[in-house]
Amino acid sequence: MRILARDIPRHEGEAVTLCGWAHRIRKLGGITFVILRDRSGLVQVVYDTEPDFSLESVIRIQGRVASNEKAPGGYEVQAAATEVIGAAVAELPVAINKDLDSVGLETILDNRIVTLRNPSVRRIFELQASLLHYFAEYLRGEGFTEIKSSKIIGSGTEGGTGLFTVDYFGERVYLAQSPQFYKQAMVASGLERVFEIGAAYRAEKHDTPRHLNEYVSLDVEMGFIESESDLMDLETELLGHIFTSVQRDHADILDEYGATVPTGEEFSRTPRISHEEARQFIKERTGKTAFEINPEGERELCEWAREEHGVEAVFVYGFPRKKRPFYTYPEGLKTRSFDLLFRGLEITTGGQRIHQYATLLETLPKFGLTEEGLGDYCSIFKYGCPPHGGFAIGLERLTQKILGLQNVKEASLFPRDRKRVRP
Amino acid sequence: MRILARDIPRHEGEAVTLCGWAHRIRKLGGITFVILRDRSGLVQVVYDTEPDFSLESVIRIQGRVASNEKAPGGYEVQAAATEVIGAAVAELPVAINKDLDSVGLETILDNRIVTLRNPSVRRIFELQASLLHYFAEYLRGEGFTEIKSSKIIGSGTEGGTGLFTVDYFGERVYLAQSPQFYKQAMVASGLERVFEIGAAYRAEKHDTPRHLNEYVSLDVEMGFIESESDLMDLETELLGHIFTSVQRDHADILDEYGATVPTGEEFSRTPRISHEEARQFIKERTGKTAFEINPEGERELCEWAREEHGVEAVFVYGFPRKKRPFYTYPEGLKTRSFDLLFRGLEITTGGQRIHQYATLLETLPKFGLTEEGLGDYCSIFKYGCPPHGGFAIGLERLTQKILGLQNVKEASLFPRDRKRVRP
Repeated sequence: MRILARDIPRHEGEAVTLCGWAHRIRKLGGITFVILRDRSGLVQVVYDTEPDFSLESVIRIQGRVASNEKAPGGYEVQAAATEVIGAAVAELPVAINKDLDSVGLETILDNRIVTLRNPSVRRIFELQASLLHYFAEYLRGEGFTEIKSSKIIGSGTEGGTGLFTVDYFGERVYLAQSPQFYKQAMVASGLERVFEIGAAYRAEKHDTPRHLNEYVSLDVEMGFIESESDLMDLETELLGHIFTSVQRDHADILDEYGATVPTGEEFSRTPRISHEEARQFIKERTGKTAFEINPEGERELCEWAREEHGVEAVFVYGFPRKKRPFYTYPEGLKTRSFDLLFRGLEITTGGQRIHQYATLLETLPKFGLTEEGLGDYCSIFKYGCPPHGGFAIGLERLTQKILGLQNVKEASLFPRDRKRVRP
Repeated sequence: MRILARDIPRHEGEAVTLCGWAHRIRKLGGITFVILRDRSGLVQVVYDTEPDFSLESVIRIQGRVASNEKAPGGYEVQAAATEVIGAAVAELPVAINKDLDSVGLETILDNRIVTLRNPSVRRIFELQASLLHYFAEYLRGEGFTEIKSSKIIGSGTEGGTGLFTVDYFGERVYLAQSPQFYKQAMVASGLERVFEIGAAYRAEKHDTPRHLNEYVSLDVEMGFIESESDLMDLETELLGHIFTSVQRDHADILDEYGATVPTGEEFSRTPRISHEEARQFIKERTGKTAFEINPEGERELCEWAREEHGVEAVFVYGFPRKKRPFYTYPEGLKTRSFDLLFRGLEITTGGQRIHQYATLLETLPKFGLTEEGLGDYCSIFKYGCPPHGGFAIGLERLTQKILGLQNVKEASLFPRDRKRVRP
C-alpha cells in the first residue's frame, strides 16, 4: 500500500512504499540521496548503492522510515528496493528542481508540460483549483444555480469585433466573449440567481501582462436587485469568503510566494467611488488628466485605497454610458455599472442591466443596433424579466493578484495569446 | 423584505412581499386568482379586483398570508398592492404554464428562452447543477485537483476528423474534442489526480437523440493505477455518490419525472463483462451477430444487467485495439479500456493509457502517426510519467438517463446540433 510523502512522520520505523518522481539526485561518498516528489510533497530517500534512474523518472520505492534531524522535514526513507515505473530520458529541457525565476516566461510556457512539474509552478494551480471551489461554494450557499451555456454562438451580443470565428458545418459562427446573453436568460427563466464557470474568448491582439485570448470567466447574475449596490455587496461578501478560505487552506502557498490576502473584514472596507471621483483622484495623484482609467490609473486608485482604507481594492461605479455596452442600465448620462480594481488591476466588470423590453428597444438605435441583429437576445425581456445584474471575475487575474505574479499567463495552465496555441 | 414562495407557511397572518412571475391568471366571479412563480415554487395570490398585468409579467406583491385548504399548498396571499416591475407582452410563443409534452422538441428548443420558464423544464437544470457539484465534491474528497485546460488546440490528439476549425488570427486551429492531452499532462506534472468540467466539441454530422456537437465533459484522470479496474472502481464509487446525493436532495424532481436512481449498494453491483462476452450476450438475446456494440446492443446489455444483477448498468472492458485510440494501453490484441453503459446508453469511455515513452513511440506508426504530428503530446511521457488512466462522463447523457428524457438535447440548456446554433 502506497503512502504519500506528507504522511511519512506517522510511519517512523515502518516499512513503507512510496511512489513519485526523482526530483533531485545527489551522490555523497558511497551514499546517494534522492528527493522523491509526489502530489503531497517531498521526501528524502537514502541509497547505499548507486540507483539506476535519471531525474524525473517515476519510481516505486520500498524502504524503512527513520528520523533524521538533517533530512528535510526530519525524516528519511532508507531504500530497500526500487522499481522504475516510468523512465525519463536523461536530458531535461529545463531544470525542474531549481528556481525558475532565471528562466524567461516564454521558455517556461514553451516547455509548459515540463515546467509545470516545478512545485512552485504547480502550486499556482492548486490554489486556482481552490478558488473555483470557494466561488461555487459561496454562491450555492446564497441560492445560486450553476449553469453551463454554449460557447458557440450565432451572433455576438457585444458586437462583432473581438470575436473568433468558427466554421460550423460551413456556417460562420463565433466563440462567445462571455455568457452575458445566457446568464441573463437564465435569470429571466426563473432561476433568478445563476453562476457559470466557463471559458471566454477575446480575439484581441493585445500582448500585455494582463491579457489572455482565452480565459476562465467566473460569472454571476442575480435577479430582483435594487441597483448595482446589491452586486457590489454580493461581490464583497463573495471575495471575502474566497480570501478567508485561501488564508485558512493555503497559508503555505501564500508564504512561498511572499503573498498575503486581505481578511474578510479588511476587504469589506473596500471603498466605492464614482468614475468621476476616480478620474479626479488620478489627476491629483499623477498630475495627468485621465479621460479613461488606464493601467497607471488603476494602480494609483488601489494605492489610494490602501493608504486611506487599508485595502488595495476599490469599486469604481457610474461609468459613462458610451463606455459601457448597450445593455447597461442607464442613469442619465451615466450607468449603473462598476469595475472592481484589486492590487492595481481590474478583475471585475459588472452592473445592472436593462430589464424592460420597451427601454431596450428605445436604446438599441442609439448604439446602432436592431432587435433582429441581436438574435434571440430581446426575447429575454419581451416576456417579463426582473431587474437584474451581475458581474464577472477573471479567474487568472484573481489568481495572479492573490499570488503577486508578474504576468497573467503564469496563472493559466495552457495560456493562449496572439502567437501561442500550444502546448 | 421579500420572502420566497416556499416560505409562505412560516408567515401565516403576516403582511409579506413576494416577487415573481405571473404563472397563471384565472378569473372567477369578481375574484382573480394569480399563481405567482418564483425560484422556490408557486403560491396562490387572490385579488378582489381585476389586476392589470399579463401572464409572465414580473410583479411585486404585498399582501397577507392566510391559510386556505383549497389553495395549492394550503396557503394563499390576499393581495393588497401590486407593482409590475417587468411587463410581458400579451402574446406568448408557447404556453408556459401547461405541460409541454404536446409541444415538439424543435419548438421547445426554438423558443428555449421562453420554454425554460416551464418549471418542469427548469428543474432538469436544477438537477444538472447539482450533478456538477456532486462530481467535484466526491473527487476533491479523494485528493483530485480541478483543472481548466484550453479548448483551442493547435493539433488534434485524436486525429483531425471530427474537429471544428477556428480562425485564430489567421491561423487554422481547432476546438478540443476532449481535454485528453491536458489531463494526462497534469497527472504527469505531479498533480497525479485531476478532474475537469469543460466543454467538448465534436464536428460530427449525427442527428440522433444521443448526440450533441457541444457537450459538457466530466473528465477524470488518475496516476499510479494498476489497471483499468482501479478506474472502474473509482467510477462506481463516484456515481454511487452522485446517485445517493440526487436521491437525498432531489426526490421531488425524480418524482415529477417518474424517475428513480440506483442506490449506492445497487450501483456497486454493476457487472463488468469483456467486449467479447458483451457481443456474445447480444447475439444470444437478439439472435443477431454484433461486430460492434450498437445502440440496440447497449440496450440489451443493460436489460441483461437489470435481470441478472438488479442494476441497469454494465461496464464493458477489453475493447479490441483497433476500436480504441492509439494512446490506449494495449493488452495483446485487446486494450485496458472500458465503457460504462447506463440505462441503455454509453455514458462513459475510459481506460488506462500508455505511459512509457518507448512503448508510445513503437505504437505510433501502427496508427499512422508520428511524434512530430502529435505536437507536444509525447513530451508528457518523455520526461517520466506514472501509469495512469481516466474516463469521461457526458453531463447531458447522465442527466438524460437519470430523468428518463427521450433526447439528450433536453438536457442541454442551449444545445448545438448540426443545424442549431441558436439561441
